Amino acid sequence: MRGERRVSANAAALPPYERPSWAERLGAFQLGQPELRAFPVSTWSRLVGRYSRNVPVRALQYGDAFGLVALREAIAAYLRTSRGVRCDAGQVFIVSGSQQALDLSARVLLDAGDPAWVEEPGYWLVHHVLEAQGCRIVAVPVDNEGLNVAAGTKRAAKARVAFVAPSHQSPLGVTMSASRRLELLDWARRAGAWIVEDDWDSEYRYDAKPIASLQGLDRNARVVYTGTFSKVMFPSLRLGYAVVPPDLVERFAAMRRAMDLCPPYLAQAPMADFLAAGHFARHLRRMRPIYARRRRLLVDAIAREIGAEVVGDAAGMHVAMFLDRCRSDVDLAARALERGVQVSPLSASYLGKPRQGLVLGFGNTPESAIAPAVRKLAEALEPA
Amino acid sequence: MRGERRVSANAAALPPYERPSWAERLGAFQLGQPELRAFPVSTWSRLVGRYSRNVPVRALQYGDAFGLVALREAIAAYLRTSRGVRCDAGQVFIVSGSQQALDLSARVLLDAGDPAWVEEPGYWLVHHVLEAQGCRIVAVPVDNEGLNVAAGTKRAAKARVAFVAPSHQSPLGVTMSASRRLELLDWARRAGAWIVEDDWDSEYRYDAKPIASLQGLDRNARVVYTGTFSKVMFPSLRLGYAVVPPDLVERFAAMRRAMDLCPPYLAQAPMADFLAAGHFARHLRRMRPIYARRRRLLVDAIAREIGAEVVGDAAGMHVAMFLDRCRSDVDLAARALERGVQVSPLSASYLGKPRQGLVLGFGNTPESAIAPAVRKLAEALEPA
Repeated sequence: MRGERRVSANAAALPPYERPSWAERLGAFQLGQPELRAFPVSTWSRLVGRYSRNVPVRALQYGDAFGLVALREAIAAYLRTSRGVRCDAGQVFIVSGSQQALDLSARVLLDAGDPAWVEEPGYWLVHHVLEAQGCRIVAVPVDNEGLNVAAGTKRAAKARVAFVAPSHQSPLGVTMSASRRLELLDWARRAGAWIVEDDWDSEYRYDAKPIASLQGLDRNARVVYTGTFSKVMFPSLRLGYAVVPPDLVERFAAMRRAMDLCPPYLAQAPMADFLAAGHFARHLRRMRPIYARRRRLLVDAIAREIGAEVVGDAAGMHVAMFLDRCRSDVDLAARALERGVQVSPLSASYLGKPRQGLVLGFGNTPESAIAPAVRKLAEALEPA
Repeated sequence: MRGERRVSANAAALPPYERPSWAERLGAFQLGQPELRAFPVSTWSRLVGRYSRNVPVRALQYGDAFGLVALREAIAAYLRTSRGVRCDAGQVFIVSGSQQALDLSARVLLDAGDPAWVEEPGYWLVHHVLEAQGCRIVAVPVDNEGLNVAAGTKRAAKARVAFVAPSHQSPLGVTMSASRRLELLDWARRAGAWIVEDDWDSEYRYDAKPIASLQGLDRNARVVYTGTFSKVMFPSLRLGYAVVPPDLVERFAAMRRAMDLCPPYLAQAPMADFLAAGHFARHLRRMRPIYARRRRLLVDAIAREIGAEVVGDAAGMHVAMFLDRCRSDVDLAARALERGVQVSPLSASYLGKPRQGLVLGFGNTPESAIAPAVRKLAEALEPA
């Protein structure tokens, strides 16, 4: 292998690829893992079997860039009623998950060098999307009302896009307040900017009041709404969606076609049926009390064993805690891992000066494992 | 909807998205369509059913960016023996088809503004990949030996990447000669450039001698080899592969993760089995004589009814013909469509000054339909 072996600047800038930790093993509190043992595999596989046995020749062909009409309609109906998203099926793109929705949005909305707001701390794979695109990442602090719009305006008033997860922020779990939502929409309108709403983890809420999407509040069609079936169904399904302002639909289709033509048929048809026949709603109803109990046990155990206050427990499948007196949450997570507990260091979610803390997923940690794992974590907190 | 509504320069530059013609109807000679009525749906759906009923919890989780190990191994074995590709499974990425392989390659290998060689005439969706990336497209003429490397060197000796389909060029169907292959590899070595080999349609060859891949000739690890299951299996499967030089594997994984994390499990496991159990080889053996007969009937009918010489009929599922005295092949194709014949104008495959002609797929046109459709095409050739 002789000669220059140059890759693109964007490829060179991406962080190293490492084999994901969950590929090696799953411990208590691993992030982003739903309770897969409770997924109704037999119902799902019955639908998969039905659509793969009786597949019309037409469904073996290429599809269009948008995805299967039946699935787009089922998703539009679900998002209108459950998430207050204002859309019809014509605005819905079937994608392979939130990640492709974010990447597609970045490619349609951002030029290289453009400033884009991200939440600080925030979701690491949003950073990757922007690095892959050569954009200027503007870290905007998140407080207990969500993204601080005034701080963002001060840092980069002319950002082209704001990436936010207003329903359940990653990693802090904050729900963005109503006034901040209006402030953000107002900024976007005045700046001529776009908002990419990453609604990745809002299906499970544990307090009384449901929180509608930011997209539903928007009167200027400035929000691209994205979501995924990875958390309610299962991650290897690789199905998600983007809901796009009507005047952007055609450009999103052109870009999506250039990226990978169209989504696969095999999973779309059973997914449409799973939604339309009520299996999805039923599975949500069944899982909510399971996750609610795990969350309660986790929050109680942390209060008892560690004495720390937990944030972000109103929704989703993870909680966070600040540990400002901890010297290194990375070391702490490594000590916990030695004890079989797979917590994530909060500092890893910061682009700038980090706070120390931990993020704990409770999706796939059984009830009986929670208190013992928190005790092990408490041991890990005291350095040897 | 008030205010500025700007999209990225790359998104703005992409050609309009139109609903694909085959979504409306399929006529005789539609390009890129295999004979789906002969696909062994029952064998395939049995495998799909097996892997969706007995799915290990682990397989419901996120995968890694490379794809399923069993499928990567089956593909590596297939490509080594059938295509002369020099690789092990560690270099194989499972992607959603050729298009994602091309897009992934462009994002890893090319910066905005970089010159890249494409074949002239060439595959329209390669142009889209490069436009989506803001690259400078350098059209390099194809003659009866394939890409004219000397002409390319004259136009842009310092191009970063050459996109070629040496086994069966799109649209002319040329097979690149051995001397041109060596010339291209030599240019890449000296220029420090990469070659993306799009081996999209080489499974069906009708002459005696099999043609190995360009990648297999390369001694400097400068070739990214890409292929798809869309043509032998079925397009809506959305499975393809990229074989990447060893020192680029990690950067490809980082970029692929940023794009959409990992491929879906549902189709990968049955595909691995379909290959390993010999169903794929069996299906190829069964289809080759079917396509060979259609090709023979088509070439004969064109000679008889139109008197034109056909090019590119040594392999694949399409042929081309030049019609230099035709005033507009676009008008001709429209007249043919009125008669139910879905030919593609050759001029649409040129970036610069086009030659007039037609491209005809014979994949999904039944034997009995071929002669009548060519007669209709001959009628369309005489302007009213």
